[in-house]
Amino acid sequence: MHTRRDFLQSLSAPFLAMPLLSELNQAEVEAGPTLKVALLGLGGYANRVAEAMKTCTRARITGLISGTPEKLKDWSARFGVPEKNCYSYENYDAIARNPDIDAVYIITPNSLHLPHALRVAKAGKHVICEKPMALNAKEGQQMVDACAKAGVKLLVGYRMHFEAKTLEIIRMRKAGDFGKVLFFNGLSGFRIGNPTQWRLNRELAGGGSMMDIGIYSVNGARYMIGEDPIWVTAQETKTDPVKFKEGVDETITFQLGFPGGATASCLSTYSLSNLDKFFLDGTNGFAELQPSTGYGPIMGRTNKGPLELPHIPHQTVQMDEMAAILLDGKEPIVPVDGQEGLKDLVIIDAIYKAARTGRRVDIKYP
Amino acid sequence: MHTRRDFLQSLSAPFLAMPLLSELNQAEVEAGPTLKVALLGLGGYANRVAEAMKTCTRARITGLISGTPEKLKDWSARFGVPEKNCYSYENYDAIARNPDIDAVYIITPNSLHLPHALRVAKAGKHVICEKPMALNAKEGQQMVDACAKAGVKLLVGYRMHFEAKTLEIIRMRKAGDFGKVLFFNGLSGFRIGNPTQWRLNRELAGGGSMMDIGIYSVNGARYMIGEDPIWVTAQETKTDPVKFKEGVDETITFQLGFPGGATASCLSTYSLSNLDKFFLDGTNGFAELQPSTGYGPIMGRTNKGPLELPHIPHQTVQMDEMAAILLDGKEPIVPVDGQEGLKDLVIIDAIYKAARTGRRVDIKYP
Repeated sequence: MHTRRDFLQSLSAPFLAMPLLSELNQAEVEAGPTLKVALLGLGGYANRVAEAMKTCTRARITGLISGTPEKLKDWSARFGVPEKNCYSYENYDAIARNPDIDAVYIITPNSLHLPHALRVAKAGKHVICEKPMALNAKEGQQMVDACAKAGVKLLVGYRMHFEAKTLEIIRMRKAGDFGKVLFFNGLSGFRIGNPTQWRLNRELAGGGSMMDIGIYSVNGARYMIGEDPIWVTAQETKTDPVKFKEGVDETITFQLGFPGGATASCLSTYSLSNLDKFFLDGTNGFAELQPSTGYGPIMGRTNKGPLELPHIPHQTVQMDEMAAILLDGKEPIVPVDGQEGLKDLVIIDAIYKAARTGRRVDIKYP
Repeated sequence: MHTRRDFLQSLSAPFLAMPLLSELNQAEVEAGPTLKVALLGLGGYANRVAEAMKTCTRARITGLISGTPEKLKDWSARFGVPEKNCYSYENYDAIARNPDIDAVYIITPNSLHLPHALRVAKAGKHVICEKPMALNAKEGQQMVDACAKAGVKLLVGYRMHFEAKTLEIIRMRKAGDFGKVLFFNGLSGFRIGNPTQWRLNRELAGGGSMMDIGIYSVNGARYMIGEDPIWVTAQETKTDPVKFKEGVDETITFQLGFPGGATASCLSTYSLSNLDKFFLDGTNGFAELQPSTGYGPIMGRTNKGPLELPHIPHQTVQMDEMAAILLDGKEPIVPVDGQEGLKDLVIIDAIYKAARTGRRVDIKYP
């Protein structure tokens, strides 16, 4: 059984310590240098990230980028960001000359990820981008190429890649505790509300439930099984064509085939509540996470019993770990780089193609 | 909350009473006439049925049919069946003239269901047949036709159709407690042992895991959702081609589309242990059964809480209810007749075709 202490020791940053800003220099000595992050797009999820970053030991918000002056004023006060580090979408290329900003975390509707990532990279800052990284693999590849060319790093906001119970299952799987892993079941869904939101706009979202919530099962299948799928089949159903317009998927079931013989069977839906369950099954054991990707505490068990590791806000751990990746060159247990984000887009492109054509689609990664 | 008493009252036979044979006449007066059943095929599952039938109030074993004389002798003594009611496969057509036998329960390898059903029907006795009813829909149709022609009834051994927690979920679904039902997840599998058993012989089994264990998810999807699917897609994977030969499926994932817009996503496998889970999700609630079809107590919960109904051996309830169907013309909540068995075979035929061709197969019922 792992203890809280074991878990904490397994991470690079001692995040039990929650220093006040005045103690940061002292904390830096202990934890390593601090990643100075500008948030781009100040919506609901950015607020969640900003709140969670209050308890980071290696990352802090030093800049803000928004199209809404009132938000900049409000957030500047709330998070102690000086006015000189606040930018609009018109003038933020000037971050290139601002040493207070190491990285920009892009938290906008999906279709804006690419253009913002290109601008941030051009400004010479590391790019952290919310998932899905872009609307499709072609765009994702542009982002990877642009960041490589600019000499900046590109990370995707895969907060689950740092979550303690998830990592414990991955450790057990690598240790052979489940035997030969042959099946993953991922159920990802919620009932979406307001029909006018950007998530239901094809141009802004690039699709429907798959881009927003189904991607958790796509990505989860990969990190739980520990391989990348080589084929996909998919079936789309739509019960509400008014709410879910052409090109906006309501419900997709999809299956992924893996090189080692495992299959993943997954659901992505905007029509059913509280679907947030991962199940991994092998010849000698199983692992279950439910909730598996929600913002609150993840609950898990394996054939050996419940997973008892402590909950820490995902975005707190994520941003501290991303600081270690960007500043120290740390290699995370599960990648969060542009290639990782790109793989999910390649798979999602294939899922859409499989659903459209009714045919199995073989997957080739760039 | 339902009590044991409520549940018992909801069934036709008061099976709390467990009469000794000497009390049967008294019990008959209370419960109705007794179905006199001959068991055909005295293997492991027949033994389970026979043991469970000891506590039936409306059905009892009055005949035995086997190819092994030692078994007939042993079972005759164990279950109090007179020697004159024991038959071999050579001479059992003589049951036609035996008033001690109303029905024959066929519990043989799958490929023998059809020829035995034809003989039993010809002998003028009701046919109860283990699932899968036959090797394919064509055979199933022959059985339905033969029984209709002979004027006997044909039932399939769907014991879950009488299981209390299963029926409670069906009641709740019909009452609208789950809202619009949109998703069913069925996981059916176990790790099969002895590679020489008939279940791994294509000629005897008619396939692999799908015929034996996957059929639970096929059938479960139908009774949980309450509709019959109109299309199917399927994907087959094989990790052990030595154990699972050509035509014997190891693992199949399959998806079913329903007229009301629901989708079922299911797994059938002979390579993973303890997969016995049903999950039904609707816009207002959910139901979960795990184990969902095993021989022991079924465990279930819904959004309203755990299901607390008592466990009664499934085969006991099944045989008492089948007595009511065959002798009183009772209509069960979920059908168990030949048409019901035939539907599953039509779907399984379509699953195999979909897996083989990689195409979606539209389902047409005869």
